[in-house]
Amino acid sequence: MTYFLLERDREGARDISVAITEAIEKVGHCQQCNNLTEYDICEICSSKSRDSKKLCIVETPAELQSIEQASIFRGLYFVLMGHLSPLDGIGPEELGIDKLEALLDNGEVDEVVLATNLTVEGEATAHYISELVRKKGILATRIAHGVPVGGELEYIDRNTLTEAFTGRRQM
Amino acid sequence: MTYFLLERDREGARDISVAITEAIEKVGHCQQCNNLTEYDICEICSSKSRDSKKLCIVETPAELQSIEQASIFRGLYFVLMGHLSPLDGIGPEELGIDKLEALLDNGEVDEVVLATNLTVEGEATAHYISELVRKKGILATRIAHGVPVGGELEYIDRNTLTEAFTGRRQM
Repeated sequence: MTYFLLERDREGARDISVAITEAIEKVGHCQQCNNLTEYDICEICSSKSRDSKKLCIVETPAELQSIEQASIFRGLYFVLMGHLSPLDGIGPEELGIDKLEALLDNGEVDEVVLATNLTVEGEATAHYISELVRKKGILATRIAHGVPVGGELEYIDRNTLTEAFTGRRQM
Repeated sequence: MTYFLLERDREGARDISVAITEAIEKVGHCQQCNNLTEYDICEICSSKSRDSKKLCIVETPAELQSIEQASIFRGLYFVLMGHLSPLDGIGPEELGIDKLEALLDNGEVDEVVLATNLTVEGEATAHYISELVRKKGILATRIAHGVPVGGELEYIDRNTLTEAFTGRRQM
């Protein structure tokens, strides 16, 4: 990319440079959900067409973006900017759990969808938050584990197969 | 592999040849479940330690093997040897659905787990069989669709994300 820009498109390179500088200066975190935004409150949090009773917890802004692109969730988000990882010194405080609690205490949310990754850390984070959510009398749900769409069982790993069988549901 | 065997291990090549000939002559399909076996009734169907109340439907013997290796299911199987595919002329008769019905009419099975693939054909096959199973008053379940274990949401396709959200469950 560097060679291409220097040889053929120096003007394009200048545009990229300006865009990066602007992003550094203007893009910050939403005060409500931690998502990246140019405003104090991001466009999702300030939208009136979203269902403020549903709150989806994700680890990163990139994952929020994946969910948005799939158009499957019309509620609000809370971005942890990571996951619990005691060995790296990342505890509830570093993930802004107090901010999340304040949001839940507003009393509007009736379901928290835990969409952290299905890794060991993501699962641990989901369990930690689900307990906190349940204590407040709010429904905590976890996105489904199982065989991905298009998946052929022959090539699915053992742990996913186990989740798919234990999580089977009535047709 | 061919070069290796011819240059270095002609004896091994003879063993492979004998094994293949034996397999061709001896290995057939289980009369009850269609799985590959050297006997009339395969080892799983004739085992007394399996739970004959649960019946798992799979497309191929290789998928049965994957599930067995994961040690997640202790019931019996029925292998369709394919999936419904009208364009290729594969209908219920080609999949031995009459044999499956006879098995269900025995009255022992109380749950049929549909573990066909999560492809379009596999889903269609699962739906067709689930209707047939329900008509007999037997519980039909489908293995869970969702994010595979270890999966990071950022890299999960849109359809799987949709399944994961719609299939979310209380924690």
